[in-house]
Amino acid sequence: MFESAELGHTVSDETYEKELPALREALLEVQYDLAQARSFPVIIQLGGVDGGGKGETANLLNEWMDPRLIHTHAFGPPSEDEAERPPMWRYWRELPPKGTMGIFFGSWYTAPIVENMDGKLRRKLDSQLSDIVRFERMLTDEGALVIKLWFHLSKKQQKHRIAELEDNPRTRWRVTEQDKQHLKHYDAFRTITGHVLRETSTANAPWKVIEGFDANYRNLTTGQYLLEALRKHLDNSTPVACKTTAPALAVVDSLNVLNALDLGKSLDKDDYNSQLEEYQGKLNLLTRHEKFKKISVIAAFEGVDAAGKGGAIRRVTQAMDARTYNIVPISAPSDEESAQPYLWRFWRQLPRRGRVTIFDRTWYGRVLVERVEGFCSEPDWMRAYAEINDFESQLTDHNIVLLKFWLHIDQDEQLQRFEEREKTAFKRYKITAEDWRNREKWDEYQKAVCDMIDRTSTEQSPWTLVASNDKKYARIKILKTICEQLERKLDALK
Amino acid sequence: MFESAELGHTVSDETYEKELPALREALLEVQYDLAQARSFPVIIQLGGVDGGGKGETANLLNEWMDPRLIHTHAFGPPSEDEAERPPMWRYWRELPPKGTMGIFFGSWYTAPIVENMDGKLRRKLDSQLSDIVRFERMLTDEGALVIKLWFHLSKKQQKHRIAELEDNPRTRWRVTEQDKQHLKHYDAFRTITGHVLRETSTANAPWKVIEGFDANYRNLTTGQYLLEALRKHLDNSTPVACKTTAPALAVVDSLNVLNALDLGKSLDKDDYNSQLEEYQGKLNLLTRHEKFKKISVIAAFEGVDAAGKGGAIRRVTQAMDARTYNIVPISAPSDEESAQPYLWRFWRQLPRRGRVTIFDRTWYGRVLVERVEGFCSEPDWMRAYAEINDFESQLTDHNIVLLKFWLHIDQDEQLQRFEEREKTAFKRYKITAEDWRNREKWDEYQKAVCDMIDRTSTEQSPWTLVASNDKKYARIKILKTICEQLERKLDALK
Repeated sequence: MFESAELGHTVSDETYEKELPALREALLEVQYDLAQARSFPVIIQLGGVDGGGKGETANLLNEWMDPRLIHTHAFGPPSEDEAERPPMWRYWRELPPKGTMGIFFGSWYTAPIVENMDGKLRRKLDSQLSDIVRFERMLTDEGALVIKLWFHLSKKQQKHRIAELEDNPRTRWRVTEQDKQHLKHYDAFRTITGHVLRETSTANAPWKVIEGFDANYRNLTTGQYLLEALRKHLDNSTPVACKTTAPALAVVDSLNVLNALDLGKSLDKDDYNSQLEEYQGKLNLLTRHEKFKKISVIAAFEGVDAAGKGGAIRRVTQAMDARTYNIVPISAPSDEESAQPYLWRFWRQLPRRGRVTIFDRTWYGRVLVERVEGFCSEPDWMRAYAEINDFESQLTDHNIVLLKFWLHIDQDEQLQRFEEREKTAFKRYKITAEDWRNREKWDEYQKAVCDMIDRTSTEQSPWTLVASNDKKYARIKILKTICEQLERKLDALK
Repeated sequence: MFESAELGHTVSDETYEKELPALREALLEVQYDLAQARSFPVIIQLGGVDGGGKGETANLLNEWMDPRLIHTHAFGPPSEDEAERPPMWRYWRELPPKGTMGIFFGSWYTAPIVENMDGKLRRKLDSQLSDIVRFERMLTDEGALVIKLWFHLSKKQQKHRIAELEDNPRTRWRVTEQDKQHLKHYDAFRTITGHVLRETSTANAPWKVIEGFDANYRNLTTGQYLLEALRKHLDNSTPVACKTTAPALAVVDSLNVLNALDLGKSLDKDDYNSQLEEYQGKLNLLTRHEKFKKISVIAAFEGVDAAGKGGAIRRVTQAMDARTYNIVPISAPSDEESAQPYLWRFWRQLPRRGRVTIFDRTWYGRVLVERVEGFCSEPDWMRAYAEINDFESQLTDHNIVLLKFWLHIDQDEQLQRFEEREKTAFKRYKITAEDWRNREKWDEYQKAVCDMIDRTSTEQSPWTLVASNDKKYARIKILKTICEQLERKLDALK
């Protein structure tokens, strides 16, 4: 959930000053359209780590927009008045009426997070989260626009922030004992909030995670996201009232989880050969381990066209007995598969105990090619993230080790490989007009991949991003990851 | 959930034989349209109590329709093959492809019910049910028609069935030890399945509860419900393929929870006066009880126009200190209320501790007048049942005693009271043209009331149906119910 928000996004002061006036004007305009249409309320949730910028953002929004049409609500321990009513009462009474915006600090997410920091009562937490999902669905069914912003800092950034404040005698007082306590529990907090955000990031009320360290970046991103969401909801719900068109938004910064990958990593031939032998041998032993009969393994391969999935998969299967594994290549669905829900063809391929299934392309096609090519509608691919998370948690709950690899190369490397494929007779079948067409949509695919990683990389089944400009490096990285994950799983089994 | 299915519905052999041929023909026809359109699959869940007719119904559907297009699946303990995969795997692999029907016996509802028969782990159960709700939403989002039939027998009917089988030497062998065990746990089973059905009766995949005792009634009701659901889904999803129009369905029988009420009940003046004094005195003492400060009370009054809500409410408030209670009359929402989700105006009126709020008409307007008059769309009032159940369980979880009364009179009595109101000067304000208009929609209102009672009468907040042709009887019944419920709640408090 936090992958894209730990990259160190920044926006220069110059860019910030340049972009701000147009953004503020557009926000004011959309706010007046909202007030005039009076067709729906806007509920803004602000959450996040200490020092991530929740408070600053609330102040900023009130400064940028007309504060008469915004109400800000912070919730501490319940008052006597509140304690005498059901817990949700205090939120209900502060819901903004149509045409206005309500900013909620903390809110209905606070209790589930605080009460479950020990991570023990997953069942209880999930039941609380499902109450939240139902409540928010009711709000959006009633027409509300629900915007949920989460301001994130990486552990390093969090430490840095506290140290910086402490170093300066004029800000030292701002560091409380609580800040230090929270820093201590950073990892537990990150785990539980990641789970909470994923489970409550629904198609109708998704979370937007924003890196909070650089104020310029945080402010611009928040403002642009808000503007876009408001404009879209106004267009959908009140076509007549829509007098202005959404301005083209400048890209806040170009950093994302994919271009943050160091694609220069490589291995020389000797290193490669010795490590290949080492990890293939290790993998072989692991699959013949006594306890291996108690688990199943699914390795899911996705990646840029020509990133080398096939070659990597072969290096994996070379290490195993052919009776142990099964490779499932995924292309367009068969007639039989098209007659079923899209996950059906993956369910039917689940491995038995002691077996490995390797998917060459996967269920993620729904949020990649189907999204980008428009094979399914936005509501359909938006709901797919939750459906996929549900699917995968059923797998990992059942002692299936799920390994997910994204093989990444850059555009230059892809071009070179495409051209080579066209030149080499026995590789020509590997390159089609479709590959060239997909290449033209490079940016859209990148965006889809980043969203996919943010929304589906979980504690139990994280994505492994593999820098693949050097095939040797990529293959070893994959083999090594498989070995490590399997070892960890087998060790954990009684 | 089971109110309408414990009335003793029957259909005569004569009616059955008369209705059957047309029904079977229509079912076959709709089945072929389904196969030809190939636009969606039909998933039929059969559940219910022992002897309620699950098995007979599966046989019947295969007999009435083309069995080549129906697949029936029964699930016992998981096979070795199944146990090696996640629990949902065996259901996924049997999902029917588009254009066909799959009948599921037991299925994904079995484990949550069996595992939670002790009623202790409400949190665990609710989390399992929310998994089911998400799974079924995925199915319907993917276009599937999900039909869920629950065959119910009252405890009396269940006992009767077993006794009858045992009495006959030729059927005695059919009564198993398990049947007797199940009968012993009937009440626990009824409680948990009621909860399960309510929580999973969503707008996209609602349960239909059918009384299973009389085979004629059961068969006709099942067939007609299936036919209607199929025809409607076909019309919505494949307008072109729809060549036939749905036949007008005969009413299976006219019995419902409202006309099953004995409206002849009455009290003479002396009895009334003495009981009025008794229960008003009791209610007064209860509201001044030490422990009353720990709870709140909500009394919700709904009923037929002119059924006597106002008079009944006055008899209740007469028993209390004016500082204790608050009466909230509900009519059309104010501007401020219209700018909020429909439940908002009820949330804002929740009582503090030690206080009583009386609603004269309630949040049920959503599924009564708004449904019948078309003020809100079918998806909107369909989702309201779940939203209302969520709302009410937050109340009862918070030590609020929630009492819900439906005051019922018949059409003749209403006419008489309307005419009287028009004749009496000081009552004339009570009768409007709208009352006469509503009266013309009597049958639609009855249907809405029956659905409301089935879907929102819960263990924690059951509906009390009050026969109100005799006002004296009705008032005492209400006062007595309030006293009993309050006593029970105060006794249960530590």
